[in-house]
Amino acid sequence: MESSRDEDRQISTVLTERILAERVKQEKQKRCGSFRVGLSGAPGVGKSTFIEAFGMLLLERDYKVAVIAVDPSSVRTGGSILGDKTRMVELSKADNAYIRPSPSRGTLGGVTKNTNETILLLEEAGYDIILVETVGVGQSEVAVESMVDMFTLLANPAAGDELQGIKKGIVELSDLIVVNKADGDLIPKARQAQYEYMAALRYSMPKSPLWRPRVLSCSALTKEGLPQVWDTMHEYWSSLEEIGELSRRRQQQRIDWMWRLVHDELNHRLSSSIDIQQLIPGLEADVRDGKVGPTWAADHLLSTLFGGKYSRSL
Amino acid sequence: MESSRDEDRQISTVLTERILAERVKQEKQKRCGSFRVGLSGAPGVGKSTFIEAFGMLLLERDYKVAVIAVDPSSVRTGGSILGDKTRMVELSKADNAYIRPSPSRGTLGGVTKNTNETILLLEEAGYDIILVETVGVGQSEVAVESMVDMFTLLANPAAGDELQGIKKGIVELSDLIVVNKADGDLIPKARQAQYEYMAALRYSMPKSPLWRPRVLSCSALTKEGLPQVWDTMHEYWSSLEEIGELSRRRQQQRIDWMWRLVHDELNHRLSSSIDIQQLIPGLEADVRDGKVGPTWAADHLLSTLFGGKYSRSL
Repeated sequence: MESSRDEDRQISTVLTERILAERVKQEKQKRCGSFRVGLSGAPGVGKSTFIEAFGMLLLERDYKVAVIAVDPSSVRTGGSILGDKTRMVELSKADNAYIRPSPSRGTLGGVTKNTNETILLLEEAGYDIILVETVGVGQSEVAVESMVDMFTLLANPAAGDELQGIKKGIVELSDLIVVNKADGDLIPKARQAQYEYMAALRYSMPKSPLWRPRVLSCSALTKEGLPQVWDTMHEYWSSLEEIGELSRRRQQQRIDWMWRLVHDELNHRLSSSIDIQQLIPGLEADVRDGKVGPTWAADHLLSTLFGGKYSRSL
Repeated sequence: MESSRDEDRQISTVLTERILAERVKQEKQKRCGSFRVGLSGAPGVGKSTFIEAFGMLLLERDYKVAVIAVDPSSVRTGGSILGDKTRMVELSKADNAYIRPSPSRGTLGGVTKNTNETILLLEEAGYDIILVETVGVGQSEVAVESMVDMFTLLANPAAGDELQGIKKGIVELSDLIVVNKADGDLIPKARQAQYEYMAALRYSMPKSPLWRPRVLSCSALTKEGLPQVWDTMHEYWSSLEEIGELSRRRQQQRIDWMWRLVHDELNHRLSSSIDIQQLIPGLEADVRDGKVGPTWAADHLLSTLFGGKYSRSL
C-alpha cells in the first residue's frame, strides 16, 4: 500500500477498490468496521506515553488496536519503525496491537494517500480502534481530521502560552481535548488549562450540531483519567454510529479524499517539476522587485506546467 | 482592467507592469502611494452606513477616497454600481471620492485578479485611501487581507451570538475590530461586545509582532467614535510605513498574488472545463457509494484536465 512503484500502485488501487466495496455494504447497515481516532498535539505533550498507556487500556477491554503515525517531517529520516517500537515498548510487544508509522514522502500528498489506504487495510485486518497520530505542525491536522471519525487534541498543562502557539484552527477541529500530565505538582495547572480550553471552545464554531466538544484531563503516567477519556470516546462512537452519522461522514470523506488527491497532485506538480523549480526563485525575486508583474509571472508558470499548451481561461 | 476580453487583458497586463514599476521605485523610499484598508463584516453590520460616514470624515481631512466592493455573490446580479450609489448617497456625489464595485465573475479568481489591478490603478490616479469592502462570507476575506495594508472587521453589538457565527479566522486576520451601532439603547451591548472581542483576540495568535490588534466602538449613525477609528488607522499607517514594513508587505503580497493567480487558474480549470463538469456529479456519487475508489476517480479527473496526457507523478 505504501509503495510508490507503478505496479504496486496498480495492485494497491485494485485492493482499495475491493476493500471499499465491502466497507460500503457494511456502512449501509450503519456499521463502520472500526473506530478511527485522530490524535494531535504539540511536541512534548507526551503523545507516545499517552498512546502507550491508552492503547494498553484498550487491549484490556478486548479491542484490537492499530497505531499509525503521520509525520510530514519524517521524510528527512525515512521510516522510523524501530523508533516507534522503542517509544511504545509495551504496546509494540502486545499480541492485539500493531504500530505502523506512515512513511511520508515529503508532501501531504504522500501522507493523505497512504494513510487513507492504510486505514482501510487495517480495518479489513480486524483492528477495532485505529489511532492516527499526527505531529503538531498544523499542516497535517486538517488532512487527518478528514480521515478519522473523531479528532482529539492532546494538550499541555499551562495552556496560556500554548494557546498562543497552537493554531486556533486545531482547537476548532477537535471533538475532544485532553489535557495530559495532570499529575503531581502539575494538577492545578492542568485544571487551569482545562478551563482555558473550555473558554477557547466557547469562542469557536461547533464542528457539528450532533456533538459538543469536551475538555478532559488525564495523566498518561499515573493512568488517572484515562478510563474517562475512553468513556467519552465510546459515547461519541456509539451515539454517532447509531444514528448513521459515522457512515454519512465516511461517504463525504471519500469525496474529500478524491479532491485532496487532485489538489495534492496539482500542487505536487508545481513543486516537483524541475522546469518550474528552476523558474521559481528568479521569478519570485522579479515579482518582489517589480521587474515583472504577478499576472505575467503566473501565466509563465502555468504555461510551463502545461507544457506550453496553456492559454488563460480566467 | 476589469474586462475579460483577450485584447483588454493584454493591455491591462502591460498597464499593470508599468504602474508597478513606478510603485516599486517609491516603495524603495518607503513610500506606499496610498493606504489600503480592508473592511469586512457580517451582513447587517452597517458597512454601507459606516463607509458613507467614515468616507466623509476622510474627505474633511483632505484625503481622496476610493471604495471598491468585493462581493463573490454579486455574480448573480452582475455589477451593482447604481446600488452602491444609492447606499452611499453623500459619498458618491463628493468630488474627491470614487465608488466602484468590483464585478466578480463567480470565482475568487475574478475577485483577486481584478481587485489587485484596480487597487493599483486607483493608487496611480491619486487616491490616498482605498477602502476594500468585502461581504462577510469567509471566503473573500483571506484574499482581501493579502491585498491591503490593514484589515478591519466591523462587528455588531451583542457579540455572543455573532462570535459563534463569524469564523474565528476572520478575527485573527484583523488588525482592528470596530463594534458599530454603539448608539442609544445599544451602547451597553456594544461595550460588552468590545470586551468579548478583546477576549477572543487574547486566544488568537497575533498576526504581526509589530502591531497589537485593537478593538474600538463607534456609531456610524451619530458619528461618535469615528475620529478615534481614523486615529488608530493613521497610527498604524504611519508607524508601519516609517519602518518600511508596509513596503516589505507589499513585496510579499505581490508574490502571494502570483501564486493565488496560479492556484485560482488551476481551480478554475477544474470547475469550468465542460469535460470535467460533466464528470463530477457521477464521479462523486460513485465515490460516495463506493463504486469506484477515490484514487481511481482522482486519476480520471486529472487525465481529463491534462487532456489525456496525464500520468501520476506522486
